[in-house]
Amino acid sequence: MPLNGISSGLIRIDEIIEPVILNKKILENMENSRRSFLRKAALGTLAAVSIPEIISAAAPKKGLKKIQLLRDQTILFQGDSITDAGRNKAENAGYNNPGALGSGYAMLTAAMLMEEYAGLNLKIYNKGISGNKVYQLAERWDKDCLELKPDVLSILIGVNDFWHKLNGNYNGTIEIYRNDFIALLDRTVKALPNIKLVICEPFAVPGVKAVDEKWFPEFYEYQKAAREIAEKFGALFVPFQKAYDEAVKVAPASYWTGDGVHASLAGAQLMAEAWSDATGLGE
Amino acid sequence: MPLNGISSGLIRIDEIIEPVILNKKILENMENSRRSFLRKAALGTLAAVSIPEIISAAAPKKGLKKIQLLRDQTILFQGDSITDAGRNKAENAGYNNPGALGSGYAMLTAAMLMEEYAGLNLKIYNKGISGNKVYQLAERWDKDCLELKPDVLSILIGVNDFWHKLNGNYNGTIEIYRNDFIALLDRTVKALPNIKLVICEPFAVPGVKAVDEKWFPEFYEYQKAAREIAEKFGALFVPFQKAYDEAVKVAPASYWTGDGVHASLAGAQLMAEAWSDATGLGE
Repeated sequence: MPLNGISSGLIRIDEIIEPVILNKKILENMENSRRSFLRKAALGTLAAVSIPEIISAAAPKKGLKKIQLLRDQTILFQGDSITDAGRNKAENAGYNNPGALGSGYAMLTAAMLMEEYAGLNLKIYNKGISGNKVYQLAERWDKDCLELKPDVLSILIGVNDFWHKLNGNYNGTIEIYRNDFIALLDRTVKALPNIKLVICEPFAVPGVKAVDEKWFPEFYEYQKAAREIAEKFGALFVPFQKAYDEAVKVAPASYWTGDGVHASLAGAQLMAEAWSDATGLGE
Repeated sequence: MPLNGISSGLIRIDEIIEPVILNKKILENMENSRRSFLRKAALGTLAAVSIPEIISAAAPKKGLKKIQLLRDQTILFQGDSITDAGRNKAENAGYNNPGALGSGYAMLTAAMLMEEYAGLNLKIYNKGISGNKVYQLAERWDKDCLELKPDVLSILIGVNDFWHKLNGNYNGTIEIYRNDFIALLDRTVKALPNIKLVICEPFAVPGVKAVDEKWFPEFYEYQKAAREIAEKFGALFVPFQKAYDEAVKVAPASYWTGDGVHASLAGAQLMAEAWSDATGLGE
């Protein structure tokens, strides 16, 4: 299929115009200032945003290795119900279509990527399955991950490893979560040495239905484990909890999540933007 | 429900920092330069983008009256199958949720608005129905528009007025389309004098299944009528055809639309961004 030359390169417009009119520092600040209402709110309050804050927020994050997408690459979203989000699980559901991608953050992120990198002919899959814990990802990993040979793999897993234990339906521990997750990633990077990993933080929004005081502080251990595992594997880490913590300052928790665990459409968009920010793949 | 003060104002960050470090002109240029890959491509080719082009693209469009959203406002998307996009049509489907909003541009636009203006407590409805022509909107207008009292009404209608005629299933003409559309809007502004109207351009992408040479130039008349009606009513106009025309320079037409008429997820995101650009409500 015909594709013109401009689609295969990811030249940033700020690199092009830099020498002519503006230095890169200012452009980076502007880039930051253009982020969403929520992002602005996260910097303080809108009226109180100051230049130093913007500059500080625009500074490169330590150790951040952003993803560079290339032509014909495959991106896979993996996880539990939050990733699943009602996707069509038929064998022939395919990729890049709303049915296969569900109605959550994976679909919204995919839509953004497919438009932003339209010339790259990306394949974007969602293989999240409702209720999954890490060991259940492991059980279906050959078929639902390794055989797809993703170039970028994003995993959001852990809330059920904790929640199902809390409600008496699972005997897992934080050690099992950690060890299972590490084993899964060891297996993944052994099979696909060039894979780019994105580890998403499990999150819970207190005060909405399912999430009460019994969740804390124990749930924090699962979040800490996910972050440490991301570091161990050199993965990009998406701080979803922070995104929700900031979001509930702007609108009620119930606006972002119906039960404290599953995202509303607004919550899914929040997550898609957090994902794009963390990976450097947003517009 | 608790909402903090920052959510009720729509202070733009560029207004805040303007006096301190940068003049507004540069900020507007930056704002423009931050748009998507596709938008950059639309300016020429990425490598060939020049400062004059950016400045020109950043210049305010003549007569553009951007929408200012306020607290508790209602936004309604109306139209045919492209708007419908498989939404749940149950009486109690509600608003702001993926089911009620479908899987098309209306849902993606809603997701962006709900995150961007999270503090405003917006209600966003989709009442598009597959196959609709203007007269069918009119038949259900009391229930599916006026009774919802939208503050912002976005309408995409016209492709079936032409297409169903082309395939012999409808006897409408361009005059009927124009007159019916004007009558519908007269009725709307009479009932809701403060409504903000957004008229979306019917579009067709040649060379993909349904859209062949028989569509042109006659289909252009429907597009011209929609644009003229937007002008007549002081509505914002969303140039979807231009968005697709630029998009097919970056990826094949079939990437954006399965049949030349209905958007893929990538096409829906393209439309959501075009809608946001045209209304000034994008991030």
